[in-house]
Amino acid sequence: MNELAEKAVKLLTEKNLILATAESCTGGLIAKTITDVSGASQIFQCGIVAYANSIKRSVLGVKNETLKKYGAVSEETVREMSQGAIRISGADVSIAVSGIAGPSSDDTNKPVGLIWIAVNCKGNITVKRLDNSFSENVRESNRNSALTESLSLLNAVISDQ
Amino acid sequence: MNELAEKAVKLLTEKNLILATAESCTGGLIAKTITDVSGASQIFQCGIVAYANSIKRSVLGVKNETLKKYGAVSEETVREMSQGAIRISGADVSIAVSGIAGPSSDDTNKPVGLIWIAVNCKGNITVKRLDNSFSENVRESNRNSALTESLSLLNAVISDQ
Repeated sequence: MNELAEKAVKLLTEKNLILATAESCTGGLIAKTITDVSGASQIFQCGIVAYANSIKRSVLGVKNETLKKYGAVSEETVREMSQGAIRISGADVSIAVSGIAGPSSDDTNKPVGLIWIAVNCKGNITVKRLDNSFSENVRESNRNSALTESLSLLNAVISDQ
Repeated sequence: MNELAEKAVKLLTEKNLILATAESCTGGLIAKTITDVSGASQIFQCGIVAYANSIKRSVLGVKNETLKKYGAVSEETVREMSQGAIRISGADVSIAVSGIAGPSSDDTNKPVGLIWIAVNCKGNITVKRLDNSFSENVRESNRNSALTESLSLLNAVISDQ
């Protein structure tokens, strides 16, 4: 069991906050890890895996101009993904992640290992940029790093609530 | 790496089919396992984790009367979840799963280990019911069983396409 996820479920339950997720490169890993924890249904209701840009637009409401101007892997996009997750679900808090897990880059040639994370707590958005450069198991390492950093940021933000 | 997921990505790629997921009890595990496979972005665009009934209704379009009459863990609900996943994403194929992973039951007192799976391929829906009764690590075992059975059913259905 992931200790950060257990802590997140405990904190969210104590503070009576509902979480939603909007994931691109992690592909459901964050929602899966949260729901590994028994009792997660008390604080988690909705996760969106928006792997394609079309889904970031149509389901999460990310603006086409944002995707065109900044790309899917950008601070601006994860901010809008975090807002979309809250809008869809009515949650109090959301995690949004978009990055280049590898082994290949996307069509923008941004580096593999660039990952943007946003935690949105009732409209206040905190972002974090990762610049990973793993030499082995690149895809798995980048996804696990995004998971750990996302949950750490979530826990830091909700500890202050 | 999950061999069934690798086979699914290979088959979907060969047959030029796009997959979407609609997960309840597995909570993102299926989307995560598919996207563990490098190259999954060619065949996977959208996953919905509809943990709460409100999200099954609002995002996936499951009818309120279906949830009231048959419950969230039912053949009827997974059929509608599979249709919702395709409607939202424009995918060709979807997997939908709803079950009682445990350790506790839901408010219907259906047994822990009851899991319904639907695979929808261009409107043709194949369903499967699991009646698991694991004695240890019940939640993890039920979720992993749902993953394995879902991917097996998916691969069987798309092999025939």
